[in-house]
Amino acid sequence: MTKVSPLAPKGGFPPLPAIDGARFSHVQAGVRYAGRPDVMLATLCPGARIAGVFTRSSTRAAPVLDCQEKIGLASDAGAAFLVNSGNANAFTGKNGAETVAALSRAVAAALDLPATRVFTSSTGVIGEPLAHERITSKLNELVAGLSEGGIEGAARAIMTTDTYAKGSWVQLQTANGPITIAGIAKGSGMVAPDMATMLVYIFTDADIEQPQLQETLSELTARTFNRITVDSDTSTSDTLLLAATGKGPQPDTLVDFQEALGKVMLDLAHQVVRDGEGASKFVEVRVTGAADEADAEKVARSIANSPLVKTAIAGEDPNWGRVVMAVGKSGAVADRDRLSISFGPILVAENGWVSPEYSEEKAAAYMKGQDLVIHTDLGLGEGSATVWTCDLTHDYITINADYRS
Amino acid sequence: MTKVSPLAPKGGFPPLPAIDGARFSHVQAGVRYAGRPDVMLATLCPGARIAGVFTRSSTRAAPVLDCQEKIGLASDAGAAFLVNSGNANAFTGKNGAETVAALSRAVAAALDLPATRVFTSSTGVIGEPLAHERITSKLNELVAGLSEGGIEGAARAIMTTDTYAKGSWVQLQTANGPITIAGIAKGSGMVAPDMATMLVYIFTDADIEQPQLQETLSELTARTFNRITVDSDTSTSDTLLLAATGKGPQPDTLVDFQEALGKVMLDLAHQVVRDGEGASKFVEVRVTGAADEADAEKVARSIANSPLVKTAIAGEDPNWGRVVMAVGKSGAVADRDRLSISFGPILVAENGWVSPEYSEEKAAAYMKGQDLVIHTDLGLGEGSATVWTCDLTHDYITINADYRS
Repeated sequence: MTKVSPLAPKGGFPPLPAIDGARFSHVQAGVRYAGRPDVMLATLCPGARIAGVFTRSSTRAAPVLDCQEKIGLASDAGAAFLVNSGNANAFTGKNGAETVAALSRAVAAALDLPATRVFTSSTGVIGEPLAHERITSKLNELVAGLSEGGIEGAARAIMTTDTYAKGSWVQLQTANGPITIAGIAKGSGMVAPDMATMLVYIFTDADIEQPQLQETLSELTARTFNRITVDSDTSTSDTLLLAATGKGPQPDTLVDFQEALGKVMLDLAHQVVRDGEGASKFVEVRVTGAADEADAEKVARSIANSPLVKTAIAGEDPNWGRVVMAVGKSGAVADRDRLSISFGPILVAENGWVSPEYSEEKAAAYMKGQDLVIHTDLGLGEGSATVWTCDLTHDYITINADYRS
Repeated sequence: MTKVSPLAPKGGFPPLPAIDGARFSHVQAGVRYAGRPDVMLATLCPGARIAGVFTRSSTRAAPVLDCQEKIGLASDAGAAFLVNSGNANAFTGKNGAETVAALSRAVAAALDLPATRVFTSSTGVIGEPLAHERITSKLNELVAGLSEGGIEGAARAIMTTDTYAKGSWVQLQTANGPITIAGIAKGSGMVAPDMATMLVYIFTDADIEQPQLQETLSELTARTFNRITVDSDTSTSDTLLLAATGKGPQPDTLVDFQEALGKVMLDLAHQVVRDGEGASKFVEVRVTGAADEADAEKVARSIANSPLVKTAIAGEDPNWGRVVMAVGKSGAVADRDRLSISFGPILVAENGWVSPEYSEEKAAAYMKGQDLVIHTDLGLGEGSATVWTCDLTHDYITINADYRS
């Protein structure tokens, strides 16, 4: 097996608490991998509300299209998430939708749910039909294995080339007792021709209506999962599902809930970047002083996605010239002579030139760290944005240039 | 020295013909490199018309800003292009513009020209002041060395980490005799912290007015130099200058001239890609059937810039799934089930799935070639576009992750 990313959180998988109304299970179905769990099932109690966000790709995989259709349908029934690794059921022609329908029907029958309340995701090889009977033949075993404590096993079953399982949780106090939020994720390790797919499932016992749940999730996604980048490429299968069972209290305010959910989402998003292909550095790209937030985001993405910036970081080179280049090509309003750039606490460039107090030696020492901050201030306005990324290393090439067969 | 790119044109530097009214020279000024020519001078006869296109970066270097100001000024005087390698005079604060002014004044005095007719470019390390007196102290030598046959030496003097000098030429017949067009270029080899700057200088004896010259150049740039990509990054110094001496005939039609100039520009653009950092494959990304040309270009750029596509090519992997991914993330209108993808003559995918006649073995054999064509048809409309790129290899990382000092 691949060795665990050097950027993995210390201490291993966190001890996720049970979520009242949610149960989890996993099996070895041999979809593609042998000798490891590759299917997870999560079930939600009747009345659970489901929200979701999905890849914006115009070549979305069949399971994504199916989830998008179902997410808006109101229902008081229970619900289920079925997720397999090993095969993405993507770009498989008409076969794709038929497979999703077959899986949904089978899970619905096994759990006595409407098929519209079964959400499926698939991650793995694309362009090959998913042998869904390998999954359906294990449904009884999956259902029998359901337990409130099964979330860690579920997190492991959805890994593809992830080097560690990803989980996060928080508890939020309310006037009527605590709300618990716990989530799992996979991404973005990748082996050709799998997509660097990101799958995220978050569960809470909060009592919150679906429209609020969806709105909160969409807003937070813009500041968390949509602000991370490994290689600028976008999967056809990215999926984030959020289930609120309603077994716990209502949040005192929506803002409280937003803040708590945001913590879990940001933590999981960071864990995805920390498992980026070949990553050896975790980088926070912070942009301030832009004309507006949209411009700040453009600049942050341009820096975070630049191969020249990312290779410089891999080489532990405080190469601020490449940051200037990335600002310049971003399309945002910028004035070369008002830019300032810092690497961590070290002011590198200001007023269109290297800072008079800059020490190459100190900057080079800083770049040897594992967690880095690159801060660019455009000196123009109030717009700010942060994007998280990793470096671009030889291991990225090795992982992605390997021949498939 | 670096070994010559495996993708370099066979036969070495082409025998560029003299252009009546243009003379060339080069010297070793020791700007940064020792023991090699690093400054070129080109002079144009009185009445020569000058056109130019420049990087769109918002952090453009001082020489670029200066050229842009001068390019629109009408003049019947002669003109000069002065180009140095080793230092880009970029992001050097106020110092940058002062250096450009000093160089322009010195060349103008040496050649008895107005300073507004002296165009300078600089390529190399950024953020360090350019020691312009090293160049001005060699001006007498440069002027003494001017000759009609000196263009190959000029091409070599502007190289930075290019692995070969780049030249191209054509002759265009007219009712009044031939028009000759000859050009040189550098790019896009790069050593940290140099930018992968592209500099191009094209000379013709055609008798053509400045507005037509500029319009033709701008139009052709959109289909040649703006359709190549090595790593999606954009230099702060990219410059293309075109001089027409007027010593030869007028073209019979502007279209004739456009076509001839386009050949030189496309050839030079391809040579730049063929010298991309670490490149082992030259790839033509052709997109047809898009809703319109803008969409076609979006898709072509998305494929050509995708690290996952580029690493697959480096790995000689016919990974059409990554092409589907790149189409999906491009932002262009696309329908997964109408896409078809070919690698060279091999139809790989159609109707949203792998083609029934597809043979992985044949596709893998095709990918072992050095010049590849990836053709995506979106099946929607008449929009088409072509972008040229290279693969993303371990050598790219090695070149760009090396520490500066």
